[in-house]
Amino acid sequence: MEGARPVRAARGTELSALGWQQEAALRMLQNNLDPEVAEHPDDLVVYGGTGRAARDWRSFDAIERTLRTLKADETMLVQSGRPVGVMTTHEWAPRVLIANSNLVGDWANWEEFRRLEKLGLTMYGQMTAGSWIYIGTQGILQGTYETFAAVAAKRFGGSLAGTITLTAGLGGMGGAQPLAVTMNGGVAICVECDPSRIQRRLDHGYLDARADSVEDALRLAVEARDARRPLSIGLLGNAAEILPRMLAEGAPIDVVTDQTSAHDPLAYLPVGVAFEDMASYAREKPEEFTQKARESMARHVEAMVGFQDAGAEVFDYGNSIRGEAKLAGYARAFDFPGFVPAYIRPLFCEGKGPFRWAALSGDPKDIAATDRAILDLFPENEPLARWIRMAGEKVHFQGLPARICWLGYGERDRAGERFNDMVAAGELRAPIVIGRDHLDCGSVASPYRETEGMLDGSDAIADWPLLNAMVNVASGASWVSIHHGGGVGIGRSIHAGQVTVADGTPLAGEKIRRVLTNDPGMGVIRHVDAGYDRADEVARETGVRVPMRES
Amino acid sequence: MEGARPVRAARGTELSALGWQQEAALRMLQNNLDPEVAEHPDDLVVYGGTGRAARDWRSFDAIERTLRTLKADETMLVQSGRPVGVMTTHEWAPRVLIANSNLVGDWANWEEFRRLEKLGLTMYGQMTAGSWIYIGTQGILQGTYETFAAVAAKRFGGSLAGTITLTAGLGGMGGAQPLAVTMNGGVAICVECDPSRIQRRLDHGYLDARADSVEDALRLAVEARDARRPLSIGLLGNAAEILPRMLAEGAPIDVVTDQTSAHDPLAYLPVGVAFEDMASYAREKPEEFTQKARESMARHVEAMVGFQDAGAEVFDYGNSIRGEAKLAGYARAFDFPGFVPAYIRPLFCEGKGPFRWAALSGDPKDIAATDRAILDLFPENEPLARWIRMAGEKVHFQGLPARICWLGYGERDRAGERFNDMVAAGELRAPIVIGRDHLDCGSVASPYRETEGMLDGSDAIADWPLLNAMVNVASGASWVSIHHGGGVGIGRSIHAGQVTVADGTPLAGEKIRRVLTNDPGMGVIRHVDAGYDRADEVARETGVRVPMRES
Ligand SMILES: NC(=O)c1ccc[n+]([C@@H]2O[C@H](COP(=O)([O-])OP(=O)(O)OC[C@H]3O[C@@H](n4cnc5c(N)ncnc54)[C@H](O)[C@@H]3O)[C@@H](O)[C@H]2O)c1
Ligand SMILES: NC(=O)c1ccc[n+]([C@@H]2O[C@H](COP(=O)([O-])OP(=O)(O)OC[C@H]3O[C@@H](n4cnc5c(N)ncnc54)[C@H](O)[C@@H]3O)[C@@H](O)[C@H]2O)c1
Repeated sequence: MEGARPVRAARGTELSALGWQQEAALRMLQNNLDPEVAEHPDDLVVYGGTGRAARDWRSFDAIERTLRTLKADETMLVQSGRPVGVMTTHEWAPRVLIANSNLVGDWANWEEFRRLEKLGLTMYGQMTAGSWIYIGTQGILQGTYETFAAVAAKRFGGSLAGTITLTAGLGGMGGAQPLAVTMNGGVAICVECDPSRIQRRLDHGYLDARADSVEDALRLAVEARDARRPLSIGLLGNAAEILPRMLAEGAPIDVVTDQTSAHDPLAYLPVGVAFEDMASYAREKPEEFTQKARESMARHVEAMVGFQDAGAEVFDYGNSIRGEAKLAGYARAFDFPGFVPAYIRPLFCEGKGPFRWAALSGDPKDIAATDRAILDLFPENEPLARWIRMAGEKVHFQGLPARICWLGYGERDRAGERFNDMVAAGELRAPIVIGRDHLDCGSVASPYRETEGMLDGSDAIADWPLLNAMVNVASGASWVSIHHGGGVGIGRSIHAGQVTVADGTPLAGEKIRRVLTNDPGMGVIRHVDAGYDRADEVARETGVRVPMRES
Repeated sequence: MEGARPVRAARGTELSALGWQQEAALRMLQNNLDPEVAEHPDDLVVYGGTGRAARDWRSFDAIERTLRTLKADETMLVQSGRPVGVMTTHEWAPRVLIANSNLVGDWANWEEFRRLEKLGLTMYGQMTAGSWIYIGTQGILQGTYETFAAVAAKRFGGSLAGTITLTAGLGGMGGAQPLAVTMNGGVAICVECDPSRIQRRLDHGYLDARADSVEDALRLAVEARDARRPLSIGLLGNAAEILPRMLAEGAPIDVVTDQTSAHDPLAYLPVGVAFEDMASYAREKPEEFTQKARESMARHVEAMVGFQDAGAEVFDYGNSIRGEAKLAGYARAFDFPGFVPAYIRPLFCEGKGPFRWAALSGDPKDIAATDRAILDLFPENEPLARWIRMAGEKVHFQGLPARICWLGYGERDRAGERFNDMVAAGELRAPIVIGRDHLDCGSVASPYRETEGMLDGSDAIADWPLLNAMVNVASGASWVSIHHGGGVGIGRSIHAGQVTVADGTPLAGEKIRRVLTNDPGMGVIRHVDAGYDRADEVARETGVRVPMRES
């Protein structure tokens, strides 16, 4: 893309903006585009198919320029990756407000989105790409780890040892799968059509081995499984070919899922198309490509259903592949569940979700110190402690050092305040940026993923993410975003994000207390309203107010 | 609806809430349901088909209860007319955040909306119904007056004298049409199928006469037209029958528009259905009814196109009747333009829009004093002065005394600050509530209405209303709302509202300055971004910042 250049966030305590809140936005935007972090930094693509951090390089320049001079009572407005205004607000207000990829309902389809994108009027923001809080593969590693742990708990006595998981996609999100499976003791075969992605995961230690053929992969997998030895294997190929073949050959697969970027049919390789030709073909004949991709997804999903029929644990991992397969006419596409109703909903009822933070100092020691703080704050939480310890050992930082762990209502604010105190006390070298994925307990409406199968049928109601965004703006977040389509594709979700900077000031402490109470609080009330008993319990125990229950 | 009772806002200075910000929300909610204001208060319906102020009476009670005890650093969250949470924020934050009727794109259709509504999970918020700033027919009178003035300027030398306008619908919005036409010197024939609506407009002095037949109506109209005498005539009947008939008979019509509630096919009377049977039929057979209504709308729109072919000035008045006619298969439905591109867009470029305010004292003298303040503040603006004077004479207050006038960027903040100063100085008996319609320059994405035919093709981009809502939250508005569908129907728009209370405190003054600068500022930057020269000029003249133009 015109204007491309390497970008990397500054480290240390020298500011190039007028305050840490602005500096944090600047560094996190830059960090999203760090070649260590972003999948295609020259195109401003961070992850998830075409999830961008800025609309184009001119917009990127204007955002940088504006952030550098933005005052502590000013707010920059970003419309689909382009800065469109600067307004006088006040010191409790966010420094940046972001709305990405949003379209009016009747026009919320890929055709219209692409038309507008081609006109230079919008961009795809995914979840944390356009909201500047993507932290690399670790971001999803923990969620993936938790999900496979839940699979293990449900079906295999708490461990994946002695089982084989078959999945596909080793991109920004999917790349976490092999490590998450081996962390749970299992064996993973990961199909990927792009050899450079396989190499990247091998280089980063997320993937253990590469297989040259299906036979090779299965042989390695069965050996490791029989020895109850964790192993992850990358297999070059097209999932829509390999899965049906493995099914036909009766491969001994225990768990099946998928993280190809199926949510965007132009980013899924159709059968019969060479990987090298994919980009130009998608660009030149988008409609033909889309149709072929959908047909391949139908075969892919058909094989997944086949594995389920044969007894495997099968789930959709939030990439909308069932929806696309259904569009291609495959009737049983929704025969297996999404991962949220299957494993994540109970956590959401407790306001739990993907809490994450990054060290603006660039110093891994700052993350090590926050890791210790988490272990200290929540000594009774054994799975959390296990994760923090494993992550400390196994996670290769990409860009600014960062950490993620799932925390719930009443926990996030405590962690955030502790971090702010540590900055104030000089225990950390620089401020900490605290954010989360848009995939959170009360920040997203997405009937094929986070809100699939809600108890009261309210899957499609999109008031909640909008209230979530507004309450974060009203609580003192540093930047807040509302996006459309991330993860599952245009027309299929609305979601919101917030990032809050712990700069060690008392004001930041006040803001953190409110934001990190209210933000997960949205998850509790959303699930109380939908009739989940566990959410009701949590609300009663923790004093979350539900006006309809008062009298 | 269960729990129905008459509601009326308190007047005077005795508070039943903990502060004026909360009291204002309480009174404005109640005022929306005042039988003088609301179209069907027992059903909580304020205007615009089924635009509600609260989801049900239990929700209404819970909102009232919560507002009465809400502290100055707390925020109540309202999800489609039901209070779902109370969170600790801070004194610069809004006291209420509202999201109404929002659905994820692929589910944003009437079928899904009705299903969810039936389950008690959502309500239709329209624009100012669910955001508690509807002030009765005056709210639209001024916009309608401006629109007909623009028609007069474009086609008839600045006055409608000697012309006949044919329209339909005398509901909450449409009821303003006859008075707006006669204020411009013209003759209006208004078709309406509900006799009580005709009576109501006669009682309020918005309508001059009733005709018993088409012949009668035309005779009265032609007489008045020839005498260049303003006259408005209500004609009982179905517009889908009467318009084609008048066209066939060669009726001498100069201007044609429509304000039946066509945006909601269950609220449009189909040909062949008796008005008395309409409600039960729509309830019992919604699909059949919808189809019939759409077929009738196709005939209605076909007649409108016929009048245009015959030389009349014809426009869609923002009720989506073209879209519905098209759904019914009428190919030429979009042959006439919407009123926004035709008449309103130039005003939007200047940040102009429907500024409105209400006197919490209940004392008409407070409005008279604010009217004088407006005349004093903008002496050079002759059309504004004419409107304010005429409104003072002709407008019958409904509920709390209120006023509306269109003000632009750099004007709204001055008016708001003046009002706050007047409250502080004791020149007014109680605080003033300042709000606006969601139909404003930078607060709505609605490709069949406010954003129809944008210069750059960005009609469907919905980032702007979301940024508008967030920036209002960040600027200190008292309550902020994000709605879906209002005016044009589910799937067709996203829009935001803000209300800010001038309680005479310095803090309110600070908030007002920011909100009433940034809110219309959104209109200026939205139109700069879309390439309108006039908006560019305004931005340069007034110092509105556009980061992409800086370097
Ligand atoms: N589960 C979650 O929590 C979650 C969160 C965010 C996003 N997602 C979704 O997961 C999906 C993957 O995200 P990502 O960031 O890894 O995307 P990505 O674009 O970075 O990676 C997708 C990978 O799939 C590969 N691929 C495409 N078609 C293939 C085929 N036919 N066979 C084999 N490999 C193929 C691509 O080469 C690429 O490496 C997306 O749809 C994303 O929206 C899930
Ligand atoms: N132009 C604008 O600025 C603007 C603003 C808001 C809303 N609207 C739209 O304008 C429309 C009218 O709004 P409203 O508040 O007056 O609605 P309303 O429901 O109060 O009134 C509509 C009227 O149309 C009548 N009607 C229905 N079908 C008819 C038929 N076939 N023939 C004759 N009369 C018929 C009804 O009896 C009713 O009195 C709505 O679609 C609304 O969304 C326009």
